[in-house]
Amino acid sequence: MHDSTTTAPALQTWKVVLSYDGTDFRGWQVQPGLPTVQGELQAALGRIAGETPLPQGSGRTDAGVHALAQVASFALAAPIPPQNLQRALNRTLPASIRVLEAKTVQSTFHARHSAVAKTYEYRLQPAAADHCSPFLARCVYACPWPMNRAALDAAAAHFLGEHDFASFAATDPDLTTRETEEEAGPLSTVRTVFASIWEERATTEGSLLVYRVRGNGFLHHMVRNLVGTMVDVGRGFLSADAIPAMLAARERSASGPTAPARGLFLHSVEYDGHDEEAALPLLP
Amino acid sequence: MHDSTTTAPALQTWKVVLSYDGTDFRGWQVQPGLPTVQGELQAALGRIAGETPLPQGSGRTDAGVHALAQVASFALAAPIPPQNLQRALNRTLPASIRVLEAKTVQSTFHARHSAVAKTYEYRLQPAAADHCSPFLARCVYACPWPMNRAALDAAAAHFLGEHDFASFAATDPDLTTRETEEEAGPLSTVRTVFASIWEERATTEGSLLVYRVRGNGFLHHMVRNLVGTMVDVGRGFLSADAIPAMLAARERSASGPTAPARGLFLHSVEYDGHDEEAALPLLP
Repeated sequence: MHDSTTTAPALQTWKVVLSYDGTDFRGWQVQPGLPTVQGELQAALGRIAGETPLPQGSGRTDAGVHALAQVASFALAAPIPPQNLQRALNRTLPASIRVLEAKTVQSTFHARHSAVAKTYEYRLQPAAADHCSPFLARCVYACPWPMNRAALDAAAAHFLGEHDFASFAATDPDLTTRETEEEAGPLSTVRTVFASIWEERATTEGSLLVYRVRGNGFLHHMVRNLVGTMVDVGRGFLSADAIPAMLAARERSASGPTAPARGLFLHSVEYDGHDEEAALPLLP
Repeated sequence: MHDSTTTAPALQTWKVVLSYDGTDFRGWQVQPGLPTVQGELQAALGRIAGETPLPQGSGRTDAGVHALAQVASFALAAPIPPQNLQRALNRTLPASIRVLEAKTVQSTFHARHSAVAKTYEYRLQPAAADHCSPFLARCVYACPWPMNRAALDAAAAHFLGEHDFASFAATDPDLTTRETEEEAGPLSTVRTVFASIWEERATTEGSLLVYRVRGNGFLHHMVRNLVGTMVDVGRGFLSADAIPAMLAARERSASGPTAPARGLFLHSVEYDGHDEEAALPLLP
């Protein structure tokens, strides 16, 4: 119940954590007339709150890329208890997008600018061409070749630390779209990778190889290009020892193919305290 | 290589085992202008063999129902090595349909008439309304209520054995479509259930309750009506003790709601030797 004498509330900043199956979306970023995650979220906010702020994602995900925990921020004037906003969003959004968490945060929070680290996961089924389970096919790269696990591990280790990843960035014709992660930031292609590992994962639909990479930021297509190159190593087409020279080349043509979008998941986004609950949470 | 003096091959009967994600199909049965599993399989055979026999399924699955191992039979004149047909089908069919097995069988084999038992599986996530993972949502019923497992088990036990399941059959206006399993057979609604159990299944996306039912045949909507009724029991809305009277009523209105298609999987189909390899396998 709201007291009609309450003064109009100031804009409140929100942080939401989203999981989505990206298969049927044309990526995160809103595009007129096309289904996008940002567009669905904006439309749902409009139906619930009568306001249509453009939610800022921690980064754009490309068409077909999934998220286990994408983060978005936006501001609303309507005072809504966080549990209610989460429930209302999940009743309004398509089942392929779920809100895992919704909370009010300090106005300094911005899903992209405040992020300090991100983790991506890439799911691959080796030696699976033509017979990947229909229940995995949307979210796994059914790779035609068997994979040499030791070679994959050796390749992954070369990406650890600070490197210029220009050889693994999409060669976008428009440089301003090259930096999907930080389009407002400098055009540097230097990034730091904190963790880069392969692990096996058993599923009822077969055994997967899963690559996890955690870093302070990622260039456009960077994870898919790292994986595509490592697949060339895992199938014996390239040696892992070739990777340092690829990094040094700073040329997209020096590295391997881009692995398919469907295997890629934005796993999580880390913040350094800026996503704390707002000091004065809204009263219901 | 075929010797041009070879006489034209006789029709060869095939058995194929299929897995499919039914979400994007309007069911098994071919319908002009709509995506169906039978239609996709027929079209793929046409592209591969230049022949378009209508594949006979072990039963029709409804729109949105999945299969882990549906069985279909058809006859082809073209002599194709089984491995080649499987590979060609998987390269031609959409990724949402996979051929797990393709073999030539005796001409007496018919996917529906020869079946002696079938198993269905129903996947349910309890207390999951509005927050079912996007990676489960296509293939699970996200049920709003928590479930009393002991009550579910008690309910499932009532369906064991031979019963008239008329109360659990769809009330199709056209009686000839009522018997989806055996439309050429008698219109009896008596079936024998050999196994009827609930089990828990852990997934990375949350814990599921899975119902497995094995029987000598199933009426239209029967498994979904059994599950919908058991969900009423599991949420405490009905007592399991009410089920014998529901069976005795032989009236669809006596039992509970129809559970959603998306949770249902045709798990497997059993045959009594009629699916043995053909005595004279084709030579490549």
